Amino acid sequence: MNERITIAVDAMGSDACPTAEVEGAILAAQEHDVRVLLCGPEERLRAELRAAGGNGLPIEVVHAPDVITMEDSAGKAMRAKRDSSIHVAARQVREGNAAGVISAGNTGACMAIVKTILGLVPGVKRPALAQVFPTLEGTWSVLVDVGANVDASPEMLAQFAAMGEIYSRVICHCAQPRVGILSIGEEDHKGNELTKLAAPMIRQLPVEFIGNVEGNDLYSGKADVIVCDGFTGNVALKVSEGLVATIKAMLRQSLEKTLQAKIGAVLARDAFEDFRKRVDYTEYGGAPLLGVKGVCLISHGKSNSNAIKNAIRVAAELSRGRINQRIEETLHESLKVTSPVSA
Amino acid sequence: MNERITIAVDAMGSDACPTAEVEGAILAAQEHDVRVLLCGPEERLRAELRAAGGNGLPIEVVHAPDVITMEDSAGKAMRAKRDSSIHVAARQVREGNAAGVISAGNTGACMAIVKTILGLVPGVKRPALAQVFPTLEGTWSVLVDVGANVDASPEMLAQFAAMGEIYSRVICHCAQPRVGILSIGEEDHKGNELTKLAAPMIRQLPVEFIGNVEGNDLYSGKADVIVCDGFTGNVALKVSEGLVATIKAMLRQSLEKTLQAKIGAVLARDAFEDFRKRVDYTEYGGAPLLGVKGVCLISHGKSNSNAIKNAIRVAAELSRGRINQRIEETLHESLKVTSPVSA
Repeated sequence: MNERITIAVDAMGSDACPTAEVEGAILAAQEHDVRVLLCGPEERLRAELRAAGGNGLPIEVVHAPDVITMEDSAGKAMRAKRDSSIHVAARQVREGNAAGVISAGNTGACMAIVKTILGLVPGVKRPALAQVFPTLEGTWSVLVDVGANVDASPEMLAQFAAMGEIYSRVICHCAQPRVGILSIGEEDHKGNELTKLAAPMIRQLPVEFIGNVEGNDLYSGKADVIVCDGFTGNVALKVSEGLVATIKAMLRQSLEKTLQAKIGAVLARDAFEDFRKRVDYTEYGGAPLLGVKGVCLISHGKSNSNAIKNAIRVAAELSRGRINQRIEETLHESLKVTSPVSA
Repeated sequence: MNERITIAVDAMGSDACPTAEVEGAILAAQEHDVRVLLCGPEERLRAELRAAGGNGLPIEVVHAPDVITMEDSAGKAMRAKRDSSIHVAARQVREGNAAGVISAGNTGACMAIVKTILGLVPGVKRPALAQVFPTLEGTWSVLVDVGANVDASPEMLAQFAAMGEIYSRVICHCAQPRVGILSIGEEDHKGNELTKLAAPMIRQLPVEFIGNVEGNDLYSGKADVIVCDGFTGNVALKVSEGLVATIKAMLRQSLEKTLQAKIGAVLARDAFEDFRKRVDYTEYGGAPLLGVKGVCLISHGKSNSNAIKNAIRVAAELSRGRINQRIEETLHESLKVTSPVSA
């Protein structure tokens, strides 16, 4: 039987905080075998928890008086708000009270604070954000990095490959992940300086490397893990989010143009719900910050209770899967292609 | 009254060549006031043209014995196949027989050949590929560059801004295009080295610069012109294409799951057709290679006759809009931010 994992939740991160976090914690505690530490203003969280029917569940409140906003710069948030909900949540992991931390707050500030408080897995140069995309094949593809390192080096891309491959095994249950580099053509000679230098380094790692893949392969299922610098990955992620929102809105407009289309839309309601679930990012929890000690997931600011629940579940699975130990082992095996410096 | 514009068409470029090109030329000659020079194997093109009912229209065949395939490298195609359909089509422009050229062939080979044969507009350092995206507001946003320059300099991004702005005026009929840099956050300090160095250069151009925009803004309508390096732009374009195809397939699967959903889908058929048109890239022709003398549009390899027709129409509009003269004037005005070298 699995041991019960404890996850610390920054309760003041999402746009709908703390309601989304409190309700998400309740759902996670009810549906999964996890214990939750809700970090934020104690009085307010206790009242919300009581009102939402959370008493009696394995959920505890840990007081954190400060709140970081989207307007705070990462540096200012880190230094001036040492008792923010994300600081307190990360410290729960450092002090051994929780196995992982999740936040739907300001991504830059979260990354900086978590990295500083938890430190890096030995051998890791830079942590990287990973994001899961649903593919047409029914599998998931993992894109690393989606925003932690805007100017990445070839060595960093090789480390992203190693970390993403383990994430794919643990979370997507992929037995033999195929790893590709995001580029602008399949042939080896197509790409920019970064991708051309990174390819031979990834080829030396103990992973199944399939070479270059293209933007459309995020959804084709051709690769299970796709690596890129954080700038390109963030653009790819946000283009996807923007396009899904746009297509939904355009489809809604088209379906409301005539009475006949409206009736059709009502009849097809279950199909639209099924479709919505398949393209809805909240079903996949948050983006893990791979390479930090402990486990950290950063969720979308627009997260609802379902997204928070899923982030808590994924954080617990990462912890059970001993992801950091495996990252450390893989990087140790491939020391020849990675710099032995830990930042 | 408009003069009749002549456009040279590489008839052997698309996956469905030469049928898509021949039928596209016929549609363009029927619907728009253009004359078409179809370049490719003479006998075959004449037979296709006759069979498709193209006789009597302002369409001429220009013989080109060689054909470049997707497997040919740009260098090999340029040197070894000097009488390819794209070589011959580009020469029609250089020799003054046509105002512009379009091709749905191998993008790398097309760009190299057209650039060599036509040369660059004075002041332009590098040509750039632009792509139009439909926005939720009903406007079009232009992304430059989507693949011509994988490792771009800040100066190049500034030139892309100047060229894209004029393209938006001429083709999207935008009276005062708002120009943004594709980045990973709205604030000036967010971005990579390239975007941070390019921003002050674009600020000095005679364009309305709105600073950083994000991936989702390709579809939000917030900017009319968005500049980026060709690597990032190509990834953004292909992620979009892949996601549109994936969403269509997932929606089809969901709509076929139950009888009720199937009936709903039939009733909503017109709405789906309306939606399909709004997200269908073929409605927007091809991607212009901005900065070359004459006009060049590169269409998707999967182009059908409708896409070819639209590419011919857009090429004629660019020529009527004197796009190159305007690019030259803008770059001349802003010489202080652009290197005076023409490649």
